[in-house]
Amino acid sequence: MSLLKSLETAEAGTEITLNALLEEVKFNDQGLVPAIAQDSQTHSVLMLAWMDEQSIRTTLEDGFATYYSRSRKAYWRKGETSGHLQKLRSMRFDCDADTILLTVDQSGPACHTERQHCFYLKVDAEKVIVAPAE
Amino acid sequence: MSLLKSLETAEAGTEITLNALLEEVKFNDQGLVPAIAQDSQTHSVLMLAWMDEQSIRTTLEDGFATYYSRSRKAYWRKGETSGHLQKLRSMRFDCDADTILLTVDQSGPACHTERQHCFYLKVDAEKVIVAPAE
Repeated sequence: MSLLKSLETAEAGTEITLNALLEEVKFNDQGLVPAIAQDSQTHSVLMLAWMDEQSIRTTLEDGFATYYSRSRKAYWRKGETSGHLQKLRSMRFDCDADTILLTVDQSGPACHTERQHCFYLKVDAEKVIVAPAE
Repeated sequence: MSLLKSLETAEAGTEITLNALLEEVKFNDQGLVPAIAQDSQTHSVLMLAWMDEQSIRTTLEDGFATYYSRSRKAYWRKGETSGHLQKLRSMRFDCDADTILLTVDQSGPACHTERQHCFYLKVDAEKVIVAPAE
């Protein structure tokens, strides 16, 4: 039985090493998995970005979110230029080990548009409406 | 200026058509974008799955989340067999139109492991611990 399969029915508190889990992570053909950032206080979903194994390790060691920018092909310590850092509160993987959920303390707005989060294009039937800042 | 660029600085309440937005969505080379499902009541992030244009339209028309299963290469009305449907409360796109955030009323557990959400593998320094059901 695969490690992930055995964890599906494992009791709470069961431990494995991070290295063992990282061997099971389903990185895509670019070596990346999606990482969701959620505000630890408001519980808003702030953004989705991408991580490779090195950015996962850097985030854990540094305590602030570092992603991999697909457009710039470079590591991207969130807020490095804007100051809008994401202090890591928790990191979780999902059942299939193909998605990461980070909870973070977000300094300032998460979105480059200066909105608190990136999900401001709200569908309303056949229209999409720019949502108010929250 | 591109539509998405113009929306970056648009006032709240600005409207475009859904069709115009869908032309801007950055589907990957499989025609998919990641879709995050968040519980509308608890604000827990439940899962991440994938949508193509048809599953976006089906979800909006039907009022329940339909994803595209990459492994089964088929549409997947969430909960069709388990009964754990996701009633759509809102659908939002992010600034880059490459990620969708759904808020849903989740019937029963969202995860196939019968946990309420899929993110139960919690990193704790060099270990990963199976988190308690929430």
